[in-house]
Amino acid sequence: MKEFNIKTPHLVKGNPEEKRQEILDYFNRTFELDTQLYNTLKDEEAFYMRADPLRHPIIFYYGHTSVFFVNKLVLAGLLPSHINPHFESIFAIGVDEMSWDDLNQENYDWPTVTEVREYRRTVKAEITKLIKELPLALPINWENPFWPIIMGIEHQNIHIETSSVLIRQLPVDKLQTGIFSNICDEDQVIVANELIDVEGSKIQLGKTENHPLYGWDLEYGSFEEQVEDFKASKYLVSNSEFLEFIEAKGYQNKQWWTEEGWSWCTYKQAEHPQFWIKENNSYKLRLMTQIVPMKWSFPAEINYLEAKAFCNWKSAKTGKKLRLPSEAEWYKLVEVTKVQDAIDWEVAPGNVNLEHYSSSCPVNKFPFGDFYDVIGNVWQWTETPITGYPGFKVHPLYDDFSTPTFDGKHNLIKGGSWISTGNEATLNARYAFRRHFYQHAGFRYVESEFEPEIRVDSYETDEEVTISCEQNYGEDYLGMTKLPLQVLEVLKNHIENPTDKRLLDLNCNTGRLAFEASQLFKEVMAIDASARFIRPAIELQKNGLLRYVITDEGELSVFKDILLKDLKLDNTLDHLQFMQDDVMKLKEQYTGYDVIVAMNLLEDIRQPKAFLSMIHERLCAGGTLILGSTYDWDTSKSQLENWPGGFKKDGEPVRSIDGISHILNEHFRLESEPLGLTYPIRKSSRSFEVQKSEVSIWKKKS
Amino acid sequence: MKEFNIKTPHLVKGNPEEKRQEILDYFNRTFELDTQLYNTLKDEEAFYMRADPLRHPIIFYYGHTSVFFVNKLVLAGLLPSHINPHFESIFAIGVDEMSWDDLNQENYDWPTVTEVREYRRTVKAEITKLIKELPLALPINWENPFWPIIMGIEHQNIHIETSSVLIRQLPVDKLQTGIFSNICDEDQVIVANELIDVEGSKIQLGKTENHPLYGWDLEYGSFEEQVEDFKASKYLVSNSEFLEFIEAKGYQNKQWWTEEGWSWCTYKQAEHPQFWIKENNSYKLRLMTQIVPMKWSFPAEINYLEAKAFCNWKSAKTGKKLRLPSEAEWYKLVEVTKVQDAIDWEVAPGNVNLEHYSSSCPVNKFPFGDFYDVIGNVWQWTETPITGYPGFKVHPLYDDFSTPTFDGKHNLIKGGSWISTGNEATLNARYAFRRHFYQHAGFRYVESEFEPEIRVDSYETDEEVTISCEQNYGEDYLGMTKLPLQVLEVLKNHIENPTDKRLLDLNCNTGRLAFEASQLFKEVMAIDASARFIRPAIELQKNGLLRYVITDEGELSVFKDILLKDLKLDNTLDHLQFMQDDVMKLKEQYTGYDVIVAMNLLEDIRQPKAFLSMIHERLCAGGTLILGSTYDWDTSKSQLENWPGGFKKDGEPVRSIDGISHILNEHFRLESEPLGLTYPIRKSSRSFEVQKSEVSIWKKKS
Repeated sequence: MKEFNIKTPHLVKGNPEEKRQEILDYFNRTFELDTQLYNTLKDEEAFYMRADPLRHPIIFYYGHTSVFFVNKLVLAGLLPSHINPHFESIFAIGVDEMSWDDLNQENYDWPTVTEVREYRRTVKAEITKLIKELPLALPINWENPFWPIIMGIEHQNIHIETSSVLIRQLPVDKLQTGIFSNICDEDQVIVANELIDVEGSKIQLGKTENHPLYGWDLEYGSFEEQVEDFKASKYLVSNSEFLEFIEAKGYQNKQWWTEEGWSWCTYKQAEHPQFWIKENNSYKLRLMTQIVPMKWSFPAEINYLEAKAFCNWKSAKTGKKLRLPSEAEWYKLVEVTKVQDAIDWEVAPGNVNLEHYSSSCPVNKFPFGDFYDVIGNVWQWTETPITGYPGFKVHPLYDDFSTPTFDGKHNLIKGGSWISTGNEATLNARYAFRRHFYQHAGFRYVESEFEPEIRVDSYETDEEVTISCEQNYGEDYLGMTKLPLQVLEVLKNHIENPTDKRLLDLNCNTGRLAFEASQLFKEVMAIDASARFIRPAIELQKNGLLRYVITDEGELSVFKDILLKDLKLDNTLDHLQFMQDDVMKLKEQYTGYDVIVAMNLLEDIRQPKAFLSMIHERLCAGGTLILGSTYDWDTSKSQLENWPGGFKKDGEPVRSIDGISHILNEHFRLESEPLGLTYPIRKSSRSFEVQKSEVSIWKKKS
Repeated sequence: MKEFNIKTPHLVKGNPEEKRQEILDYFNRTFELDTQLYNTLKDEEAFYMRADPLRHPIIFYYGHTSVFFVNKLVLAGLLPSHINPHFESIFAIGVDEMSWDDLNQENYDWPTVTEVREYRRTVKAEITKLIKELPLALPINWENPFWPIIMGIEHQNIHIETSSVLIRQLPVDKLQTGIFSNICDEDQVIVANELIDVEGSKIQLGKTENHPLYGWDLEYGSFEEQVEDFKASKYLVSNSEFLEFIEAKGYQNKQWWTEEGWSWCTYKQAEHPQFWIKENNSYKLRLMTQIVPMKWSFPAEINYLEAKAFCNWKSAKTGKKLRLPSEAEWYKLVEVTKVQDAIDWEVAPGNVNLEHYSSSCPVNKFPFGDFYDVIGNVWQWTETPITGYPGFKVHPLYDDFSTPTFDGKHNLIKGGSWISTGNEATLNARYAFRRHFYQHAGFRYVESEFEPEIRVDSYETDEEVTISCEQNYGEDYLGMTKLPLQVLEVLKNHIENPTDKRLLDLNCNTGRLAFEASQLFKEVMAIDASARFIRPAIELQKNGLLRYVITDEGELSVFKDILLKDLKLDNTLDHLQFMQDDVMKLKEQYTGYDVIVAMNLLEDIRQPKAFLSMIHERLCAGGTLILGSTYDWDTSKSQLENWPGGFKKDGEPVRSIDGISHILNEHFRLESEPLGLTYPIRKSSRSFEVQKSEVSIWKKKS
């Protein structure tokens, strides 16, 4: 199978015209492998079968990879128009498990195999022409017109693997082996696993923008994680090792399963791994196109939920704390075993990239230092739900590749399988599936005292909150400065020696002012009445990262990643605390501040007058109150009798600033004429609110 | 009573120090007359009686005029602080019938008469000090510190009259005549009325800002009205003339009454005018402090509803079209009889300003040319509901003097009564009461073929509409140009020879663009789906005037008067038509236009895609479509399947402009790159929306 050695090209180095040829070759090999995969279907009927009731029939995937090329190239402006709009609609979506809820259960009137084959030929010719004619300059980065070409090829590589799993679910009598005949027929005596020490260290995750290999958007960014010492199993768990769990009635025993796992197990009435076939009292093994006697030394292919139950059972049995590795622990194994990346191979060091077998193989076949199968053979489930690394940016041409999986429900698989090609076979590859899902995937277990930290970093989507996030951390709009930065200027101009002072930020919202103030003040306590609004601030403080989604137009969205260190606000986090509290019933400890900032708070609370009457209690003598309001009093928030102004009293208008002064004058003196701060609040790409907050500065009488 | 000849001072001419003395004298006389009025109450008990169940007891009015001085002078910044905050609250509001719904029916714990008297003395001394010490420069206009002083004096003059009516409603045994002893005891034989011809003409109403006499805000502005020929009764209707109506069972006969009138008449079970007292089979007459035998030659004192019923009955009886005069017809009588204004009198030409009697008098006593009592004796009801003249501006120190009465329910009374002093005795005085209300008021009838035009010109208060009015006609905000004026520039830049062309403005809103376009185009048809939004545009077209109220802060408002002639848009009204229609079902006649403008329409209608598919039908070949949208698609307005873009299709984003182009390309070509227009929408004085509308210009293919 050397002809399907499909290595993703170096995108930086080389001569452009040679690179063009290399890309064309890469495209051709991938396309041909994809074509050959569907040749395992014996007849046309097989194309219209659903391998999985929740998935489209195979014909969809046959058309889909070509349609993807066309749709992305049209979007990128590289193809002037669609080739077959009907095909490019029906073969466009419904691809993978992350969207199985969306699947239209109606019977599509699918085209014939011949029609699709013809379409694939047309598209292949178009892409070939593009590869030959597009201007090519190195490096090939996100802006380069060749990026969407490589994207299409890598997309096809993904579907070669996922379709191979679907084919593995079709009846074998509908299949032929075709070029995938190089099945590993070895089987060893039972392999006894063992745990090997791995020394912990900091691990740097994520690749930089100038990395020489193509990456999906979620591979980029930067995250440093501390890996503690752990032990890892020498081998992937083999079918024979997994059999012990089955024989110990593991599938019948709720205690080993997570809640999600038990729910899956009972719903599915699972009794053994999906590709095991129980006949009488013995097992056979389903491979992609054939059924063979059980290969006990092959890796057990399970979903995350089964792997986790196994670890829990084995922990109890051995008295050791066993679990799956985290993503970082997997990279630690890569590091200690000095695994080379695909680009540097002469021959794949593991059972990957179809370079060795058209199936998995014994777990003691491919050594990597003291371990086996650090990469290759089957994917390895991890404990880590996928999320973007800090610095993640959505790729505009494929903006829903990654973010729908950042939900804490999709766990990473690492290492690749025997049929992982292209990007899948690189060390930086990051694919994730729902925990109940099947791929060519098994697991290795680790022993550790530490639970890996689970960071979900999902995108905030609560619209009110994301509007505030953008107001605090996003771009500048309408040529206006963000409100928190304007308030910061007020602080700089009016507070002397802030480094000696404690500041209380009431109505801190999503927290930008508090982060900024922590650069100046000894201590900043930031309080908001709503946990929804301080959650992003706390996320930022904890992880240095904030993710949210804002409206572009209609249903289209923009994904935003904010890094505290990009704002240079990551060095004073110990001066700063965010708390949720009711400003009208502030806990006693919030007192003795030198400065209190209350921006746009009055109009939001039920008792603005009462707030003004009592706020002096929280300040030191001589302390400063900075009060801002739009005076947009609203009876749905506070009753008129609680407003300081903005109404008529005894027939005469009482302006808000006069009513506020009337109350504050008892304990404060006004330091200077009120200022007007004008700032925007983005609602969508074409719609904004602009408010003018009046800010008055009050000195508490001694 | 010569000492109570109270004439409002000339505010322009004269020497400042003499003027100061004149104002002090005017203040003293008014204050003294007010004091004397309350001396008609025999004992303290009378102060706590309610003359009318819907009004405060007399003690309120005794305190109120002084409190008004203080509250306005504090508001104007002329008094540094309140004198007696408790008094200045309890005596502040609940003055007059326009607010009787607001009256707190609880029993106030009113202060004693002595306390109020003492308070009045204190206030009088404070005002005297102010009059003596405030810098005085002529002319005294709205900005002059003496304006609020004169306002307070004129306010007291008003209450002298209205309290005299309340006193007239108290039991006579609680009253003494005091200085008001000069009751007219004449009574003539029955006066036969007759109708006298008056030649019509244009009449100019309203006074200018530099008018030499104090005026309430609603006296200013400018309105020209065509008065057609009419006849007017020589005399006010006397008690004897009115008796005929009573004897004809007028009060028992629904047919003579308006609906409002009949409703009042039956509710009150009225059988004769309020101040008539029926004893056995004869009538007596209640005057302010005493009951006298019926004075048949005195004017019948009735409310508007009774006067109107009388006219209807008399019309039927005589076969003539009789009604009350309009405000303009009253001014026509003033003109033809050459009535002098108060400032020019030696002695009042009528029974007014307490210069002759402390009561009304026979209707044939004071001649004015061929007529009698054109001014004086009693006020004269008119057919005209009060409203501000075009150019009306609310006075900021008393912003609810006028506008609450601009509701079509308050009819003007003209001419003044025997006790009308100061501003009340001037020709420009404009007071109005609800039609069921009693003052010292009677009527004169006119015969005319013409129904007077009733212009209400009330202030638009529908918030969505007033926001649009301000966006179209108001100030510029945030340094941005109004959207309609930006679209006008687009028209100027892209449409050649507009004078030959017909333009259709869809979604015309409150109409600014249509008015502006009518300056350029041969014909403008402006259509909006909402009658609420085109009503102001139609008002502007018809009357040249638009009134609306916008939010300042909280419950405080700003009153806006827009004059078409100030915008120089009043000269092309015949090029322009506003119609309400559904853009999706446009009537057939709306076709063949050279230019169609559809600004921010798509996002507002249910079928934006369908609109785009059919709009070419309304254009000439080669015509231009100017399409603007914020692309703020909202499922509450249109379902996603009807959006042209702003969603994902087959997994790929379809941007709105691309979706729009896709549809329009069939019949149009895009003329130039889309423009972005950024404009503000004012919500309150500190809160705005800012939208960016994308405008694309399309040429219909021939």
